[in-house]
Amino acid sequence: MLIQPRTLKGFRDYPPEIMIPREGFLEKARQVYRSYGFAPIDTPALEYTEILLGKGGEESDKQLYRFKDHGDRDIALRFDLTVPFARFAAEHIGKLGTPFKRYHMGPVWRGENTQRGRYREFWQCDFDTIGTTSNAADIEVALVIHDLFKALGIDRFQIHVNNRLVLNGLLEELGLAGQTGALLRALDKLPKIGREAVAAEMGEKAGVTADQSSRLLTLAETQGTNADVLDRLKRDFGGNAKAAEGIRRLDELIHVATESGIGEGKIAIDLSIARGLDYYTGAVYETFLGDLPAIGSVCSGGRYDNLAGLYTKQALPGVGASLGLDRLIAAMEELKLLSTAATPAPVLLVQFQAEHLGRYQSMPRSLRTAGIGVEVFPETKKIGQQLQYAEKRGFRLALIAGPDEIAQGVWKVKDLAQREEQSVATSDVAATLIRMLK
Amino acid sequence: MLIQPRTLKGFRDYPPEIMIPREGFLEKARQVYRSYGFAPIDTPALEYTEILLGKGGEESDKQLYRFKDHGDRDIALRFDLTVPFARFAAEHIGKLGTPFKRYHMGPVWRGENTQRGRYREFWQCDFDTIGTTSNAADIEVALVIHDLFKALGIDRFQIHVNNRLVLNGLLEELGLAGQTGALLRALDKLPKIGREAVAAEMGEKAGVTADQSSRLLTLAETQGTNADVLDRLKRDFGGNAKAAEGIRRLDELIHVATESGIGEGKIAIDLSIARGLDYYTGAVYETFLGDLPAIGSVCSGGRYDNLAGLYTKQALPGVGASLGLDRLIAAMEELKLLSTAATPAPVLLVQFQAEHLGRYQSMPRSLRTAGIGVEVFPETKKIGQQLQYAEKRGFRLALIAGPDEIAQGVWKVKDLAQREEQSVATSDVAATLIRMLK
Repeated sequence: MLIQPRTLKGFRDYPPEIMIPREGFLEKARQVYRSYGFAPIDTPALEYTEILLGKGGEESDKQLYRFKDHGDRDIALRFDLTVPFARFAAEHIGKLGTPFKRYHMGPVWRGENTQRGRYREFWQCDFDTIGTTSNAADIEVALVIHDLFKALGIDRFQIHVNNRLVLNGLLEELGLAGQTGALLRALDKLPKIGREAVAAEMGEKAGVTADQSSRLLTLAETQGTNADVLDRLKRDFGGNAKAAEGIRRLDELIHVATESGIGEGKIAIDLSIARGLDYYTGAVYETFLGDLPAIGSVCSGGRYDNLAGLYTKQALPGVGASLGLDRLIAAMEELKLLSTAATPAPVLLVQFQAEHLGRYQSMPRSLRTAGIGVEVFPETKKIGQQLQYAEKRGFRLALIAGPDEIAQGVWKVKDLAQREEQSVATSDVAATLIRMLK
Repeated sequence: MLIQPRTLKGFRDYPPEIMIPREGFLEKARQVYRSYGFAPIDTPALEYTEILLGKGGEESDKQLYRFKDHGDRDIALRFDLTVPFARFAAEHIGKLGTPFKRYHMGPVWRGENTQRGRYREFWQCDFDTIGTTSNAADIEVALVIHDLFKALGIDRFQIHVNNRLVLNGLLEELGLAGQTGALLRALDKLPKIGREAVAAEMGEKAGVTADQSSRLLTLAETQGTNADVLDRLKRDFGGNAKAAEGIRRLDELIHVATESGIGEGKIAIDLSIARGLDYYTGAVYETFLGDLPAIGSVCSGGRYDNLAGLYTKQALPGVGASLGLDRLIAAMEELKLLSTAATPAPVLLVQFQAEHLGRYQSMPRSLRTAGIGVEVFPETKKIGQQLQYAEKRGFRLALIAGPDEIAQGVWKVKDLAQREEQSVATSDVAATLIRMLK
């Protein structure tokens, strides 16, 4: 009796053609994070349920993979990387010291209902700077996101930034500071449901007048260059201390980004971004793809006042963002920007005669030291079958040495897409392959 | 009321000073695996318990993190990467085709009793070639292990190889084929309990005579160069068909490895390696560190006849090995071979005056494009405090521009270990840093 091989509902396997770009993205993200001094950390997949739930309450509870372990402990799989980071920081910050910059990439698990392109296990790639309220850290988050998308080979993207202090200042002015939560949640729906519906919700949920919601929505819908938006903000709301600080921080962000060589179009002040469901208190960030804005933000974050208040009395303000790796990969699949090769090595060495295996293994070893990945076909099947395998897997070149080539001291190099081949002296193989693979 | 921040028993956090070398090792392992054409895959952390337990029975059961999910499915966290690979192969091999070469790196979970240096969550780094019985694939496993340790910066290691066919042939000759399991399990204890005790166990558990166990142990203890051992094997056991095939495969492995430029000392035939607890049927591999042999094998594997017999009728023979990453890292910590830097960027840019933040961010951005990691200190603290931070984190160089340097168009570059500093023209900073970081 065979056991049926299958994955759980909401889970998936990653075959090579998806894992190759996935690993490439993770590597590039690591390089960018590191180049700014963010250091890697890792934490266990399993934590005490008490730590994961904190005050998060019932909504998270339903999504948790929660159970009792052999020691009857109430434990669960992490549902994000923020809560484990908060626990980690509370536990180790005395030793680590501040400021502390970390990145963390890994899987998280949520037992929520599965939708198209959403899975119950997915990766997050977070980076944060904690232990400082400095705007330099806020600005850096935008620079990191910018360099990240460039490194991922994506040119058409835009980082939208806002600062909750601006919204909070306005709400204060309007005497609506008490209804901040409901109003920001309504505001977040602006792109989806439009101005009228948002105004209606603001009236219902927060009891604001038509005039008040109009002022809020007019602010949120402010259009123009960053300079225009900043001028308008200073003119209309600069009198409120909170708003003024938010405006100052946005102004400095745009100024430093420009001086650092980032083009105007890449970072845009967008006053409609509230991230009302999150715990942000200052800068907020969202990132949209120019070719696929409809999938929503693929890299979001913001500034918060206190990361780990549930676990320690030490206030840990910080700022950071999270790359939605799986959403981004889904987008790139849709845009056909992903290679479909199922091999990480570009060259297949055809095995012609088993007695020459020494030669068939020593050539690839020297090519590998030159940075060229080479797979040796493990069997002496017919050359046609080996080349068929090479094409199916997506190899670009084949390297062949039969009795004639061996007698002449040459290798045949075959370009599998062009279906062209040439004879190359043994000593020239590495240089030829490097040239052809460029 | 604060929640106590803590990890579960048997689990640990990875702070930057451990994660930086850990990620470095994973990257190097990936590079080596890929350079041989092994392609990455990933599978879910959670699987149906039925799939994970297979016929593995009760022993594994106790170690499983097993529970019911929201849909009342009996599920568990994977305890290795082999069983998920078998399930994956059974499910997808029709589409993937053979031969199929994959690597898989990820955490696994076992609720076993914790010992020194052993955790309930740890990473495995497996690579396998399936769908072929060719000795070319067996040989390649040894080459991959060799290149892997070289890439990890470890020079003193030795790969021990054996072939179960040799042992099986001898047992056949001695009329002991029926007791193979008990005898190999006893043989595996040779390095730990010595010849006498192993002979005694063989007598007790398998009822073999003193003469029989002596012949077995004499074979296992055969010493000498690979050529000597092969000669002796051919002479003494070459008459048995099974043993002869095992000898032929070992002979070819040594021959091809030598022709591929691998020094004699790196791969050694070791007839005492049986891996009797595993399901191997041909080649077996273990890897020992010259400076720390006592920690046991840090990379082991072998050839098997049928990977996925529990899930499919398609026979999938294969060969592979697994790098014990966490054991290796523990060993390198003990050997003081790990850097203790807690930053992945070597340069700290001191923030002198907030109004120059544009300059303090644009210089690092151009240095990053030259491959130099630079962290900008987020606050304008006293320079002494910033340099203290830099030393604590393990930065190598500091980059400073106060009013004087800015007026002169230069940067001060400070070597933090040597406590020396120099002024460098803005246009020469990148070249100077590259030279100093070499």
